[in-house]
Amino acid sequence: MTTQASPRERLLDAAGELFYLGGVNVGVETLCKAAGVSKKSMYQLFRSKDEVIAESLARRGPSYQALLLPADDDGRTPRERMLHVFERQDEVVADGKYLGCPLVSTAIELKNAEHPGSVVARRLKQELTDFFESEAAAAGARDPELLAQQLTIVFDGASARAVVRAQSLDGIGVTTAAALLDAAGVAA
Amino acid sequence: MTTQASPRERLLDAAGELFYLGGVNVGVETLCKAAGVSKKSMYQLFRSKDEVIAESLARRGPSYQALLLPADDDGRTPRERMLHVFERQDEVVADGKYLGCPLVSTAIELKNAEHPGSVVARRLKQELTDFFESEAAAAGARDPELLAQQLTIVFDGASARAVVRAQSLDGIGVTTAAALLDAAGVAA
Repeated sequence: MTTQASPRERLLDAAGELFYLGGVNVGVETLCKAAGVSKKSMYQLFRSKDEVIAESLARRGPSYQALLLPADDDGRTPRERMLHVFERQDEVVADGKYLGCPLVSTAIELKNAEHPGSVVARRLKQELTDFFESEAAAAGARDPELLAQQLTIVFDGASARAVVRAQSLDGIGVTTAAALLDAAGVAA
Repeated sequence: MTTQASPRERLLDAAGELFYLGGVNVGVETLCKAAGVSKKSMYQLFRSKDEVIAESLARRGPSYQALLLPADDDGRTPRERMLHVFERQDEVVADGKYLGCPLVSTAIELKNAEHPGSVVARRLKQELTDFFESEAAAAGARDPELLAQQLTIVFDGASARAVVRAQSLDGIGVTTAAALLDAAGVAA
């Protein structure tokens, strides 16, 4: 016997996938159909579509971070661990079908910083910046907070490049991050 | 007597504004109402809404570039001229109501690199990269093409930061661009 996903889980998983592929404007009918859940059930489980947007993004958070961040205590230097994020980004983009960072896309599409989905996007993006800051401090960077913000900017700019140009990054994110690590005194 | 804008111009101007504020999913009815043009007239002027998306973005191109780029031959050094773009970005974001780079937003929302709107976004973004590359070459940068791509990444990443965090940039784009200019051998 396999464990069946609950209607709530099916809705959130379908929403995470559909909103990434089609944008947050994908309709409730399409979403419910994909999840195999009635609209009535959806509105019993969630107050609004806005809540579905926010919770589906939050649900994607851990796997999205796992996709990009190195394992704890993997024995590599902080510099290598920070560059790992950009190497992973390069690979994800090269796999094709890349439609941008789901956090940035959600914020851009919602166009409302107070929307619960934008709040989740901001929190999850901050987790990436926090990772960089902690590693930058461990590496003895001159200004870990600044470096972490700069690396986040490079990550999001490389992501935008991949979408706008619709081609692989070919290491430009890694190269750019490395230049900023050098500038911050984080030696190779 | 004032010169009246043509229905075509009214549609493109309304579309540029509405798509920026509400995303490319803003409907044709809303658009026609805002432009004061009937749907029938719209479909006589444009083959499709997709064409309106592409042409309205193309129409915004020159003013968007003028907003960010320095005047030709303004007497400043190439480095200063490159940093001007980031100073302007800082100001535009600080003015409030910033919803992201319209080129990147269009590409992210369309999720289809072959859409005519994505093609226009790519072309206009390339104009920014071309500006950086030409100035980087004039400045004697080590690798003008790479530096131009890096500065474009910083621009788009700073833009994403402004949207996701919904706060001003406070010079982080300028600081990051300057670090990469330093690294490329473009002295202050």
